[in-house]
Amino acid sequence: MSQHQDQKLDGQPDASRRKFLNTAAFAGLAGAGLSVGLSACKQEQAPAPAQNAPAAAPTAAAGAHKIEVPPGELDTYYSFSSGGHSGDVRIYGLPSGRQLKSIPVFNVDCMSGWGITNESKAIVGTRPDGRLKYITGDTHHVHPSYTDGTYDGKYIFVNDKIHSRLARIRLDTMECDKITDLPNVQGFHGTFPDKRDPVDAAVNHTTRVFCGAEFSIPLPNDGHGLDDTAAYRSLFTCVDAETMQVRWQVLIDGNCDLVATSYDGKLAATNQYNVEMGIHYPEMMAGEWDACLFFNVARIEEAVKAGKVTHIGSSKVPVVDGRKEANADPKTALTCYVPIPKNPHGVNTSPDGKYYACSGKLSPTASLISHEQVLKWFDGELKEAREAVVAEPEIGLGPLHTGFDNKGNAYTTLFLDSQIVKWNLDAAIKSFQGDKTAVPVVDRLDVHYQPGHGFTSMGETKEADGQYFISDNKFSKDRFLPVGPLHPETAQMIDISGDKMVLLADHSVTSEPHDSIVIRRDIIKTRQIYDMNDFPNAVKDPKESGLTREGNKVTIKLTSQAPAYSLPEFRVKKGDEVTIILTNHDKVEDLTHGFAIPKHDINFAVSPQETKSVTFKVDQPGVYWCYCTHFCHALHLEMRSRMIVEA
Amino acid sequence: MSQHQDQKLDGQPDASRRKFLNTAAFAGLAGAGLSVGLSACKQEQAPAPAQNAPAAAPTAAAGAHKIEVPPGELDTYYSFSSGGHSGDVRIYGLPSGRQLKSIPVFNVDCMSGWGITNESKAIVGTRPDGRLKYITGDTHHVHPSYTDGTYDGKYIFVNDKIHSRLARIRLDTMECDKITDLPNVQGFHGTFPDKRDPVDAAVNHTTRVFCGAEFSIPLPNDGHGLDDTAAYRSLFTCVDAETMQVRWQVLIDGNCDLVATSYDGKLAATNQYNVEMGIHYPEMMAGEWDACLFFNVARIEEAVKAGKVTHIGSSKVPVVDGRKEANADPKTALTCYVPIPKNPHGVNTSPDGKYYACSGKLSPTASLISHEQVLKWFDGELKEAREAVVAEPEIGLGPLHTGFDNKGNAYTTLFLDSQIVKWNLDAAIKSFQGDKTAVPVVDRLDVHYQPGHGFTSMGETKEADGQYFISDNKFSKDRFLPVGPLHPETAQMIDISGDKMVLLADHSVTSEPHDSIVIRRDIIKTRQIYDMNDFPNAVKDPKESGLTREGNKVTIKLTSQAPAYSLPEFRVKKGDEVTIILTNHDKVEDLTHGFAIPKHDINFAVSPQETKSVTFKVDQPGVYWCYCTHFCHALHLEMRSRMIVEA
Repeated sequence: MSQHQDQKLDGQPDASRRKFLNTAAFAGLAGAGLSVGLSACKQEQAPAPAQNAPAAAPTAAAGAHKIEVPPGELDTYYSFSSGGHSGDVRIYGLPSGRQLKSIPVFNVDCMSGWGITNESKAIVGTRPDGRLKYITGDTHHVHPSYTDGTYDGKYIFVNDKIHSRLARIRLDTMECDKITDLPNVQGFHGTFPDKRDPVDAAVNHTTRVFCGAEFSIPLPNDGHGLDDTAAYRSLFTCVDAETMQVRWQVLIDGNCDLVATSYDGKLAATNQYNVEMGIHYPEMMAGEWDACLFFNVARIEEAVKAGKVTHIGSSKVPVVDGRKEANADPKTALTCYVPIPKNPHGVNTSPDGKYYACSGKLSPTASLISHEQVLKWFDGELKEAREAVVAEPEIGLGPLHTGFDNKGNAYTTLFLDSQIVKWNLDAAIKSFQGDKTAVPVVDRLDVHYQPGHGFTSMGETKEADGQYFISDNKFSKDRFLPVGPLHPETAQMIDISGDKMVLLADHSVTSEPHDSIVIRRDIIKTRQIYDMNDFPNAVKDPKESGLTREGNKVTIKLTSQAPAYSLPEFRVKKGDEVTIILTNHDKVEDLTHGFAIPKHDINFAVSPQETKSVTFKVDQPGVYWCYCTHFCHALHLEMRSRMIVEA
Repeated sequence: MSQHQDQKLDGQPDASRRKFLNTAAFAGLAGAGLSVGLSACKQEQAPAPAQNAPAAAPTAAAGAHKIEVPPGELDTYYSFSSGGHSGDVRIYGLPSGRQLKSIPVFNVDCMSGWGITNESKAIVGTRPDGRLKYITGDTHHVHPSYTDGTYDGKYIFVNDKIHSRLARIRLDTMECDKITDLPNVQGFHGTFPDKRDPVDAAVNHTTRVFCGAEFSIPLPNDGHGLDDTAAYRSLFTCVDAETMQVRWQVLIDGNCDLVATSYDGKLAATNQYNVEMGIHYPEMMAGEWDACLFFNVARIEEAVKAGKVTHIGSSKVPVVDGRKEANADPKTALTCYVPIPKNPHGVNTSPDGKYYACSGKLSPTASLISHEQVLKWFDGELKEAREAVVAEPEIGLGPLHTGFDNKGNAYTTLFLDSQIVKWNLDAAIKSFQGDKTAVPVVDRLDVHYQPGHGFTSMGETKEADGQYFISDNKFSKDRFLPVGPLHPETAQMIDISGDKMVLLADHSVTSEPHDSIVIRRDIIKTRQIYDMNDFPNAVKDPKESGLTREGNKVTIKLTSQAPAYSLPEFRVKKGDEVTIILTNHDKVEDLTHGFAIPKHDINFAVSPQETKSVTFKVDQPGVYWCYCTHFCHALHLEMRSRMIVEA
């Protein structure tokens, strides 16, 4: 159905087909091939292009890091991990692998009351009848805000692929505080904050978040042009990191997948696996070349300022034209399409800011793109965008994502080979330049099995420290006690501090983390107790406790202090709409209370000095024991309030 | 408000008040006292009644068990743990502490589609408009089915305290397959399956599940008698383990809390912390004595058979009278109230079947009740029910729950002392009999902090093995990296294989596990792949794929096989009610797919050979890319189907 199957890309080098997995060969893999491979726990049907080190799985070598964190000691790193289609974000401690929290974002969490309290519903969004707009979400990419090229501990941003929303999590309270809908977008997948302003060098921290849309759709998607698939398009979106308002969008050819940003703020990048703009999957892998697409942020914002924009449907967001044809002149181009072999998946910026690694997925190569060269293309100094590629080592089958250490090495996940391959950037560049003595691949390590994302400690900052690589694997089958047909995933922890990678631990993770970030613990400064003044509806004095009524709308003000609520009972009438506002007056760290109402589907937790509220209808007369659901005190079971509903 | 504050219980021994924490003293603890105690991480305001071993926290002693499970090796135990007001059940591997799965039960899980698919909605229950009846739940007690006094790996049962429901989980697929509403019950807390039939000795496995209700309410709770608190009552409920239908209920005085059952099937027990039937918490702790209440299962079922029952409201469940007054003659009594000091929390059966340990909570004692003596009471051979108590050692402040090893020792959590106390049953009995040389308390170990439930490996079976004790603590504050005001909890793992307890690990758990079960791995036999024939709506042949329409009701039959769905697209019309039935034809273990539809709030996962369906309205014309949300293949991102909604 796509008209793009046979397109030729400009500037492609003389690449022989043998470098690629062609459609027919892959169809084999897709069926019996992959099945056999998975059954055997290791793909054997295609030889990895091993260059020196054979695959090996050393564990617990002398001098390697230890994973055990004895009782009473703390982990040294935080790992923030997307929950995939669980819709949440998880926090793990490393090296222990202990899960410390699940932050509800797009999912409903009846423990904290996320999706149940009025405050959380206002963030998630509701329908006219007050119900949540959505209870599903699919988080893939978690990236914190930056200051001076490293994490500043302020925010984490995370996408929802199902409904194309961007969420922000405050890192002091570890809670979601904003969710933004991206207009005219489907399949919002990659996201990355910028690291400094491209124009004002004094702004050396995150002010924008970039969002890539994977699926092309009719624009606007209102029922017109359903079958005019050639006109389907995707958008690349910029969201303001503070206001969380959408600033602008870019209309593009092809699709967006992952997103990366430069350290100087000048460029944002997205890999494109479907330059073909195919509608069915064989079409999407028809061409030999896809691309890594770069956005010139300053030029885009100039164009927006100059009013060179359109609007799509009812959206007020300015949209600039980033399609290839409209950006043929590099000197004025908003976008630059760098050809990359076959269906790349993943683009990552090296900690020195010089390179982007863009993997081949269906090509056994990783392409290394020079930041400086892309800037030169935008200055009209390159003949072809492809000249921005400065290395393209063959590293193995199914390369997806790349992490970096602080010694000039990259670590790429090989989905089909079930390996992590360590390769040296300088050697790869020399080899690409024709130096036959340069050997890019330094080491290989089997992982278990089929790795997706992989990432290094602090590896997406200029403070990359080369300590750990985590491989988030998609299949675990025999690595853990069986728990029925739905297996957990593995997050394998690898010590990369030495010359050889050492597998330290199989950490289990419940489905399905896509990407994670490993942050030094000193960067994170949390609050342990809320400030009551941060809640406009706080019941600041227990004496305010009581009931007020306006017609059939009743408000109950309540406080908690272990082991009692301020009201032992309250009376309402059948048919009332009841709002309960509960402020927890306990000041002791960790002294959280819960509040549940039988038969009314209410439950939420209030941490020290926090306020939450719920609104619900009472339809059945009777006695309903509201009780504390969060163990707080020896008399926790006795901590109740009685809701008396009169007929 | 309660008329029971001053009641005297029959048969109480000459217990001096010094043994109890009285109301006034506890009010101090409740306020500043507990706060100070928690701040200092250890209660200091009241000396523990140490008898020999002082508190100590040895870790990693020579010869102790190791917790590290190297990559590729499996854990030796499963731990099944309630999720508290998260509404789920978790599966951990031990000794590693790795979480392997969260089984959604009363909560919504947008990863698996629990609460979203038609199949799961039918189990959870819906309102007339098709929405879920409840999205909140509060799971406390997880107990597997038994055969011959040990776990048979068939089912796990778990309560919902908020809405008084009992759920069953199949242990082959590790999924919930039934949920039953308990009529006329609020605050369903304790639950335990029986272990054999009290009459037919050939039935040596679980056929009944017992459920205790904590909150007393007007019966029926229809708006009558709202203020007649003296008439509020609780029920004890028996559910059929196979059909999950409610068999019968017992009207009682006081309340139910935890539940335990005997190995011979004759008795079920529940501790009562509110014999006062108080409405406000000071009333609930007014009396010096509460009780452990025993149910004579055979006699109750005879009474039901004989029609000596009533019915409450519209419920058809037969209810027998288990109130104290109606059961004054032991020889015909259905129930036996054994007096236990002040607000006990927890009752556990010893692995030899001889005893029940019932803790004091507000008394520093654990009461040991003889199973044989209770049977004698029912035979009219005891003067007072209190004579069933054969030991009552002082063990420390705030005793809650007790686990057992295979050497005659009990391990009780001390909430206020933040300790685990190991005490010897025989020594306690001798001491109670007046032997001043007998020293019940054998060892103490500090835990961190405020332990709730505690349990030993296989400790609730006759195969108790004395290897591990897990302490599910309610406060963790400084034990893990801080994650904001809401801390994780700790499940501390203790080696109990030697004379001294050894703290091995601080496992983190997200809020809020109440109770857990540690099972040897050989007992659990899971299925790794579903049987397609188990799904009546399975799309068994991809050729059946397609669309059928009846009016505006459209059914889409779909199959999945990596990396494609059987229909690359399907067309529906605005206003249609669409049902999608998806069967996963992949047979490779762990090859799960997902299915999400943007803007329609649909997501679910289908494991190998599984079928699930969803039904939803389409209201907006346009193109909606359905996509695979569970990473399945190198071409996972390309795995899509296009829903075209015509105007």
